[in-house]
Amino acid sequence: MLRIIIVNGPNLNLLGKRNTEIYGHDDFESFFQTLKKAYSDVQLEYYQSNVEGELINKLHEKGFSFDGIIFNPGGYTHTSVALRDAIEAISSPVVEVHISNLHAREEFRHQSLTGFHARGMISGFGLAGYEMALSYFLDYMSSSTPQS
Amino acid sequence: MLRIIIVNGPNLNLLGKRNTEIYGHDDFESFFQTLKKAYSDVQLEYYQSNVEGELINKLHEKGFSFDGIIFNPGGYTHTSVALRDAIEAISSPVVEVHISNLHAREEFRHQSLTGFHARGMISGFGLAGYEMALSYFLDYMSSSTPQS
Amino acid sequence: MLRIIIVNGPNLNLLGKRNTEIYGHDDFESFFQTLKKAYSDVQLEYYQSNVEGELINKLHEKGFSFDGIIFNPGGYTHTSVALRDAIEAISSPVVEVHISNLHAREEFRHQSLTGFHARGMISGFGLAGYEMALSYFLDYMSSSTPQS
Amino acid sequence: MLRIIIVNGPNLNLLGKRNTEIYGHDDFESFFQTLKKAYSDVQLEYYQSNVEGELINKLHEKGFSFDGIIFNPGGYTHTSVALRDAIEAISSPVVEVHISNLHAREEFRHQSLTGFHARGMISGFGLAGYEMALSYFLDYMSSSTPQS
Amino acid sequence: MLRIIIVNGPNLNLLGKRNTEIYGHDDFESFFQTLKKAYSDVQLEYYQSNVEGELINKLHEKGFSFDGIIFNPGGYTHTSVALRDAIEAISSPVVEVHISNLHAREEFRHQSLTGFHARGMISGFGLAGYEMALSYFLDYMSSSTPQS
Amino acid sequence: MLRIIIVNGPNLNLLGKRNTEIYGHDDFESFFQTLKKAYSDVQLEYYQSNVEGELINKLHEKGFSFDGIIFNPGGYTHTSVALRDAIEAISSPVVEVHISNLHAREEFRHQSLTGFHARGMISGFGLAGYEMALSYFLDYMSSSTPQS
Amino acid sequence: MLRIIIVNGPNLNLLGKRNTEIYGHDDFESFFQTLKKAYSDVQLEYYQSNVEGELINKLHEKGFSFDGIIFNPGGYTHTSVALRDAIEAISSPVVEVHISNLHAREEFRHQSLTGFHARGMISGFGLAGYEMALSYFLDYMSSSTPQS
Amino acid sequence: MLRIIIVNGPNLNLLGKRNTEIYGHDDFESFFQTLKKAYSDVQLEYYQSNVEGELINKLHEKGFSFDGIIFNPGGYTHTSVALRDAIEAISSPVVEVHISNLHAREEFRHQSLTGFHARGMISGFGLAGYEMALSYFLDYMSSSTPQS
Amino acid sequence: MLRIIIVNGPNLNLLGKRNTEIYGHDDFESFFQTLKKAYSDVQLEYYQSNVEGELINKLHEKGFSFDGIIFNPGGYTHTSVALRDAIEAISSPVVEVHISNLHAREEFRHQSLTGFHARGMISGFGLAGYEMALSYFLDYMSSSTPQS
Amino acid sequence: MLRIIIVNGPNLNLLGKRNTEIYGHDDFESFFQTLKKAYSDVQLEYYQSNVEGELINKLHEKGFSFDGIIFNPGGYTHTSVALRDAIEAISSPVVEVHISNLHAREEFRHQSLTGFHARGMISGFGLAGYEMALSYFLDYMSSSTPQS
Amino acid sequence: MLRIIIVNGPNLNLLGKRNTEIYGHDDFESFFQTLKKAYSDVQLEYYQSNVEGELINKLHEKGFSFDGIIFNPGGYTHTSVALRDAIEAISSPVVEVHISNLHAREEFRHQSLTGFHARGMISGFGLAGYEMALSYFLDYMSSSTPQS
Amino acid sequence: MLRIIIVNGPNLNLLGKRNTEIYGHDDFESFFQTLKKAYSDVQLEYYQSNVEGELINKLHEKGFSFDGIIFNPGGYTHTSVALRDAIEAISSPVVEVHISNLHAREEFRHQSLTGFHARGMISGFGLAGYEMALSYFLDYMSSSTPQS
Repeated sequence: MLRIIIVNGPNLNLLGKRNTEIYGHDDFESFFQTLKKAYSDVQLEYYQSNVEGELINKLHEKGFSFDGIIFNPGGYTHTSVALRDAIEAISSPVVEVHISNLHAREEFRHQSLTGFHARGMISGFGLAGYEMALSYFLDYMSSSTPQS
Repeated sequence: MLRIIIVNGPNLNLLGKRNTEIYGHDDFESFFQTLKKAYSDVQLEYYQSNVEGELINKLHEKGFSFDGIIFNPGGYTHTSVALRDAIEAISSPVVEVHISNLHAREEFRHQSLTGFHARGMISGFGLAGYEMALSYFLDYMSSSTPQS
Repeated sequence: MLRIIIVNGPNLNLLGKRNTEIYGHDDFESFFQTLKKAYSDVQLEYYQSNVEGELINKLHEKGFSFDGIIFNPGGYTHTSVALRDAIEAISSPVVEVHISNLHAREEFRHQSLTGFHARGMISGFGLAGYEMALSYFLDYMSSSTPQS
Repeated sequence: MLRIIIVNGPNLNLLGKRNTEIYGHDDFESFFQTLKKAYSDVQLEYYQSNVEGELINKLHEKGFSFDGIIFNPGGYTHTSVALRDAIEAISSPVVEVHISNLHAREEFRHQSLTGFHARGMISGFGLAGYEMALSYFLDYMSSSTPQS
Repeated sequence: MLRIIIVNGPNLNLLGKRNTEIYGHDDFESFFQTLKKAYSDVQLEYYQSNVEGELINKLHEKGFSFDGIIFNPGGYTHTSVALRDAIEAISSPVVEVHISNLHAREEFRHQSLTGFHARGMISGFGLAGYEMALSYFLDYMSSSTPQS
Repeated sequence: MLRIIIVNGPNLNLLGKRNTEIYGHDDFESFFQTLKKAYSDVQLEYYQSNVEGELINKLHEKGFSFDGIIFNPGGYTHTSVALRDAIEAISSPVVEVHISNLHAREEFRHQSLTGFHARGMISGFGLAGYEMALSYFLDYMSSSTPQS
Repeated sequence: MLRIIIVNGPNLNLLGKRNTEIYGHDDFESFFQTLKKAYSDVQLEYYQSNVEGELINKLHEKGFSFDGIIFNPGGYTHTSVALRDAIEAISSPVVEVHISNLHAREEFRHQSLTGFHARGMISGFGLAGYEMALSYFLDYMSSSTPQS
Repeated sequence: MLRIIIVNGPNLNLLGKRNTEIYGHDDFESFFQTLKKAYSDVQLEYYQSNVEGELINKLHEKGFSFDGIIFNPGGYTHTSVALRDAIEAISSPVVEVHISNLHAREEFRHQSLTGFHARGMISGFGLAGYEMALSYFLDYMSSSTPQS
Repeated sequence: MLRIIIVNGPNLNLLGKRNTEIYGHDDFESFFQTLKKAYSDVQLEYYQSNVEGELINKLHEKGFSFDGIIFNPGGYTHTSVALRDAIEAISSPVVEVHISNLHAREEFRHQSLTGFHARGMISGFGLAGYEMALSYFLDYMSSSTPQS
Repeated sequence: MLRIIIVNGPNLNLLGKRNTEIYGHDDFESFFQTLKKAYSDVQLEYYQSNVEGELINKLHEKGFSFDGIIFNPGGYTHTSVALRDAIEAISSPVVEVHISNLHAREEFRHQSLTGFHARGMISGFGLAGYEMALSYFLDYMSSSTPQS
Repeated sequence: MLRIIIVNGPNLNLLGKRNTEIYGHDDFESFFQTLKKAYSDVQLEYYQSNVEGELINKLHEKGFSFDGIIFNPGGYTHTSVALRDAIEAISSPVVEVHISNLHAREEFRHQSLTGFHARGMISGFGLAGYEMALSYFLDYMSSSTPQS
Repeated sequence: MLRIIIVNGPNLNLLGKRNTEIYGHDDFESFFQTLKKAYSDVQLEYYQSNVEGELINKLHEKGFSFDGIIFNPGGYTHTSVALRDAIEAISSPVVEVHISNLHAREEFRHQSLTGFHARGMISGFGLAGYEMALSYFLDYMSSSTPQS
């Protein structure tokens, strides 16, 4: 049974509070429960923190045993060398997910420090991005990873 | 019946020539045929050109009637204001796909000019990225597009 | 009764330890008590943390019910996209306060990432800046907010 | 009796012409008259010019005898080395006021050349900023100036 | 009889498709026909291509015999050294026209690589800019060109 | 009867002194008289100053009643935030004119701060540029202004 | 028998038109015929295009079977990521030739994006550069390539 | 008896997990025990955290009573103004240690924000760097600190 | 009889007010009188203004008839394209003088926009620099000006 | 018997002349003699030159036979590609030493070109840094060099 | 009889020491002897120095009488304004040679300061580059030098 | 008797060789002899070297006993941190002289690294600059040095 964890960074705990009319559920927790039901054959976990170092702690804790990490570093994406180093240090593959399209926002959001050691990045698809990342781990992870 | 087109930019015609051992088929054309069979309920088309202006022409031609465009601008991603303008000018939603993880390559590949008007971006998942984009169009396009 | 919280970022817990001869009290806590007495008709709270994520947590906790937040992000002012996003996410108005005049210090202190979503900024007036912010909330908050 | 002068730079003479609905009076002159009445124990003067050199002249004229200068350099804030030098040359303390929040506007408005030699800066509070500066001079100027 | 050609770059073929309500005709072709009638004593030609190299070809073809070239390089304005070289290589004078005001748009549109060897530039006047360029060729081309 | 004013910035008063052999008249004043005769149905005024703030004064004075302002900010084009703000503050449309082709000169002349709020820009056509701007106001101002 | 192709980029088709007095022949075609006669034991081909994508096509077509490619990318040298990728994708060695000395021209011509994957570069020697590249392929290609 | 503390920043808790074959012990904790035994006449402490703010807390806690702090800020070295301020605020001397040679890694690792207020920096010597810092405190701290 | 004018820019009218102990006279006016006496065979004039445009006016007024202009543009040195253009426009040779050594001050004072069209620059010698400039005009102006 | 050489770059010959009160000996030569006595079991040599090329010569001469080079490149640290290449070319390990803390000085001293190929760097510890480097060579050189 | 000198800069004296297996001779001296024999009708000289100023001396000594200088400035290529000036000062034509392909190495090696006044540049062909430069002088120097 | 030395940097030994028609003497040596005769009451010395390190040696040798150093660092002005450090290290005052006007040349010549610790700078006056520097030492050195 595959073990996958979704790790969300700063401010993502406020999601449901701001966009309930869009996603049809109160908060990320609800979305996560729906996802968990739909993918009952996966051991799916969820973690959120606004503290950069706690995110590093979680990557360390899960990053040597889990089959995949779906990571949305939020605002730390563009500023955290420490998270970049954490992703390099662990052995589980990481897929970076962003709800908005980073390339359509401020200049300083176009660069991803954390993305350097990620397997790949999905951005701009809203919460759907998390499911796309999950599908990737389920369907493609056994095959060899291609290089551009 | 949904109409989706995959548009590939420069050098992507050489894919099969270089990585046959990885993808298990000769070229992108084969991959596309497999995809077409798997998604027989979608009107799926494919176009490739090394010429920037021909890619613009194709976006113009399909961009007012198709339900989705899966676009890999290749090397033009980072340099083409003209393609960026073309994506803005058309009405069909565009998903940008990159086979490699752009953030793990040279500095000048971190910026996407074309991504500004795209719905979202998928990069680093090899050919799987195209299928992820296709799934996105199939599963989520009816729902409202979320914002960060 | 108005509810206002002062949130202080990194190293501001050391204030009294370094400048007692200037401010006439041992630490920020003392200054805060004096302030509280002088403004007894306001529900005034105080919070300090050196942890970026805990500051975000506090902004989330208070930022939907309080009438004003007086925020000195300290060294995070110039580096934290996450705090900038937090200020945008909450609904309480934020006034950014800096004890020193940022424009008279190192080049990298001239830019404020967090200030983007703040109502305004007060810098260079020492502890008096906090009282100026408080007065602003008391006297002017009922009137329309001016632009430019 | 304290002597304070408000010096306004380019385009600030148009204030009342553009925002009467917001501030409740026709122009800055009216606001100034109200201020003068409210602070009748201060010798309060007002000067406005669109000419950079005339602003320098005024700073020279008042800057050796007045107790405080409240200065809004307008668009010259970001470009004038000459005004920066003038503030350094005089002995009266200068408080820089900006009606809008500079950090929420164009990139080139984030830097203040003139602010380097100012006592402090207040920005984003509309016309209230002028009164905040005035209060600062009245309440705090006798105490030692704090650092950092 | 003067020979003038209008050369339009990428995406300008979509003009009529997007702004019919503004210009009062279906597309650039219609505007061109109106212009041709109004200036019947000029041999007026029109060419549009989305392909950078085809624009170079056209400049080469006409650039040694025509009396004037009215050129809107579209998105290639900011990125094409090759078009800049082409304008330098030919002998016909080139006037660069932009429908929108480039200085009011994104930073990367403020720079014109192609404008270096042009006679002059007209931007921000909509389709009227083409007629202004045409008038320039008709009225002033016989007189010496001034230098700033 | 349309009211149009030409406002010239620094050093443009020396024009006739330097290029009499080119324009066939002694100075800008002569050119202006010719223009005035040719367009006798327009109330045409002319103003020149080397003082940045006086140019702002003139824009303020005419910018709420005139039908158009033809503005050549000279060297202030690239450095004046104050003039940029003045153009934004007034309601009359402004057309920026430059005698030389800015894109063919030093790097620092490629950027126009003032052009941001202008209707459009004409550069490189010598004194003819002023007449082109005048024609624009006469012929096109009644029609809707196009975008991009 | 060695197979070598010379590929010329934008504007190089105009060579003979501009400098006949220098090279003693009408155009590059004549120069090429002379070269072909002098090196009759080499299968020498020539291709020129102003279209970036057609240059990529030609590199793809010849780049897996020819013994050497002599490539002058013209203005695309400094802007084309797509051509850089094409040179990397093919297996034939590429020598980049520039007629002028790039380091003695504008700043933006000092950088060669395409040169990254080339064997080497020859610039500043006029048409002689092509023959130098040809000689290199003939004389040295059998020996190991040195590294700096 | 001298009191020295080693403070390690983010990801340094994983050291032993990755390089056991090199350093001959399982983790930093083991190395620290060996160090402690070898320097039994020093009161040696050790602290590690991935949380930026907890590192600041620790510097505050020890920085007014300890004789020396050996600090490896990890990824925060290049991004943390808050840690830089913390080092300035305390009175204990700080020696910055980096296991790898920062100047041989990515460009963004060449700059040390935290190093500004440090006594000195040791980088590139692996775990030996910690012992070198310890020796420095033991042997040289009594003598005057040299400049430049 | 040679005609030379000294033109001083912003804040230089305050000189005597700040440094009387150094130069041995109350203000620049006194220094100028001493200079005038010492060089009684020169028609020496003096002008000072804080207004950029008035400095341009003065350069225009004197710049076609005087034998030399000794110019200290003060803070406008680093920001004024308009003054740079004025120096280019006039025919009298200009020597730029700075009292302090610009290269030993803030980064933004290292660049001189106005110096581009000056004959030469003298900086760092205090008021002596003016006399050095005067001597230059007297002793060397008749000989050919050297280059490089 | 280990062979180690200390190589000092420009201006380091003046050390004793400037700081005798600090180090307790006249010049570096004296410090070197003390060091030599204390480490009598090492063949310790010393060389100083102000000439960049002579430093390269010395690195070449010793860099294939010595067990370690302690190198302080002085002002060449930040500008010399030639010294960087020399360190790469030789086989002896190099430790870079700086007497002052480079990160606490001017911006241009933060970057070390020469440090790229060094084993590590020690900066800020005064002359003690040389002894720390020597100890490193003695104690740790036999063990494997760690990375990161 | 033509007089040509090869001048090699820093570290090139180590060539043979590092790549004997590639070039088939011990050092550059051997290569030079082979070259000398093959071109016995040319007066061929060779000079190498690691000292920037000695290279300048040699250019001065030979640069007014020799028919050509083949110059590899090594690491000074990217940093030496003095060598650039020396090449400009002499009258003999200079061809710059680099053994490696500079555009395939670090960013700071892409720029050539010295190349500005050189006739042309050959890079990436190993030692063959020297012979290509020699051939250029022999075969083409009599014909006119082409531009761009 | 005052002791002054003129130190000339790279390429200045070629002066007379290039501009004899301008200065009326064969080389700098002749100019120096004339200068020596005219100022027979000064012990005037002259030194020239193309070697950066030899210039440092000379500054060290004379910089503790001479009354003034007139220094033209030539091309090293813009690149030499080592010379900048040398000027700081010595006690004799240094006046930097440049024959040409640096601000009228290439961008990279506008910055003077060496000028930071100089007393002042004279540039653009040809050989006359040396005499101006000499006069400065004779006439003004006894008076206090002014600031700013």
